[in-house]
Amino acid sequence: MSSVKHKVLVLSGKGGVGKSTFAAQLSFALAGQDKQVGLLDIDICGPSIPKMLGLEGQEIHQSNLGWSPVYVEDNLGVMSIGFMLPDPDEAVIWRGPRKNGLIKQFVKDVDWGDLDYLVVDAPPGTSDEHISIMQYLKATNVDGAIIVTTPQEVSLIDVRKEINFCKKVGIRVLGVVENMSELRQQIEIAEFKITGTDGEEKDVSEELLHQLRTHAPHLLSAFVSTTVFYGGAGGAEKMCRQMRVPFLGRVPLDPQLGKAADEGRSCFEDAKCVASSTALKSIIKQVLLATEKNG
Amino acid sequence: MSSVKHKVLVLSGKGGVGKSTFAAQLSFALAGQDKQVGLLDIDICGPSIPKMLGLEGQEIHQSNLGWSPVYVEDNLGVMSIGFMLPDPDEAVIWRGPRKNGLIKQFVKDVDWGDLDYLVVDAPPGTSDEHISIMQYLKATNVDGAIIVTTPQEVSLIDVRKEINFCKKVGIRVLGVVENMSELRQQIEIAEFKITGTDGEEKDVSEELLHQLRTHAPHLLSAFVSTTVFYGGAGGAEKMCRQMRVPFLGRVPLDPQLGKAADEGRSCFEDAKCVASSTALKSIIKQVLLATEKNG
Repeated sequence: MSSVKHKVLVLSGKGGVGKSTFAAQLSFALAGQDKQVGLLDIDICGPSIPKMLGLEGQEIHQSNLGWSPVYVEDNLGVMSIGFMLPDPDEAVIWRGPRKNGLIKQFVKDVDWGDLDYLVVDAPPGTSDEHISIMQYLKATNVDGAIIVTTPQEVSLIDVRKEINFCKKVGIRVLGVVENMSELRQQIEIAEFKITGTDGEEKDVSEELLHQLRTHAPHLLSAFVSTTVFYGGAGGAEKMCRQMRVPFLGRVPLDPQLGKAADEGRSCFEDAKCVASSTALKSIIKQVLLATEKNG
Repeated sequence: MSSVKHKVLVLSGKGGVGKSTFAAQLSFALAGQDKQVGLLDIDICGPSIPKMLGLEGQEIHQSNLGWSPVYVEDNLGVMSIGFMLPDPDEAVIWRGPRKNGLIKQFVKDVDWGDLDYLVVDAPPGTSDEHISIMQYLKATNVDGAIIVTTPQEVSLIDVRKEINFCKKVGIRVLGVVENMSELRQQIEIAEFKITGTDGEEKDVSEELLHQLRTHAPHLLSAFVSTTVFYGGAGGAEKMCRQMRVPFLGRVPLDPQLGKAADEGRSCFEDAKCVASSTALKSIIKQVLLATEKNG
């Protein structure tokens, strides 16, 4: 771990806010800029990283230098308990101490090599995994944590806890990412349906587009914007101001990004992901700036 | 705990799939049918239940019979660590043993009274909280677990683990709920926008509705249907067939349900929630049937 220039934790208060997706795409982006990147998944009971990097079914190899990460590219190595399960459906029913032991091994016994960036994807919460990773990494310095959230108040409650966790253990908050703020879909690929009196659904998309083409063709370039999660009290941006941590930006809920994650692909190489990848790029640029100032 | 007729766990593999929202609405629905209901939140590091039941800022009282739950109505009592924190933003940085101790107290030292249903909202995963709640409830029998998921493959991977956890510890799977399958929005309340060459966004909703009103008024009753999470391999229903557990149904991603949850309200008393509440009603009916067969 001494030959790792930058260490970044990706945290969230609540689960399912897109934390692993962000960690995966951050790693793809850094590797795309010719950085040497390690991605460490410490979500022991629900590892999503192997799938999101397209590495399902891969195994870890042992060398005389320790465990070898699984490589997506020469400059992107990944470590996860997902590579160690004989059956991917098997539940990892482990209490804290056993999880802590494995995290320690992931930090100390893995031959990460020289890295520009180690990205750590943590499970939601502030318990064993978080206390342990901080302990094992602390001696060798951590650049900071990125916290991912949705605009919902139930999610922000847990983010405040997460920020206070960072303050308590002395880790810098690089910033907060607001995910799934809004869903955008081009009108030409949206589906429009009508439920008939018999309960049957009829697709009227073609008919609607035909009407627009005939009577108002300029509207064909419109998109449908849907607020998915209402951020009652001003969302993540306001919370960041109150808690004096940087707000890194918003990423729209993009079904195409979810698809790329499910298929283990980088969104930056998929033109269909433009809604999310543009937002992610700007956020990752800020992360790079903030960490590289550290040296 | 001996005077509790039915005990139901609400589980998920991944977080953020709507598990706490489901547990909250299940409790509202059961209470609405004049059942005596207890709702126990064992998500120690990220308790969402107080907010979702409209009970933020409430405190637990102590009587000579033990801790008293916080009551929404006479027949709906709630217990959560959220009621015990002096500052709601404070992080609960606890390792497993301390979490287990509190869960034991929630089961043994709380004066739940006579209950028809105890609903337990668990955190994501298969670790300390899950092992402990099973241990403390086991002696007195659990009806089964409801597992909530989204259609995404990354979520289904963790659900398979969760089902295998249930099999290993000997708890019946009452069924799987697929959440956030599809987003539906009436065309009349959807927002349509165009991004101009200057990058400015212009709202064209009124113009679009005007075109429809003039040329095709029957299309005004259409809704926009968006696939939010692609369920590549057949979604939860197919997985249920493969793993031989009941599929309880789909609940659309309904921004209005998220809003009701953020505001601590029952979706069954809000006409705007019709898309989700109709689906939830049918699922809850099946849960009632499955548990009441148990006696």
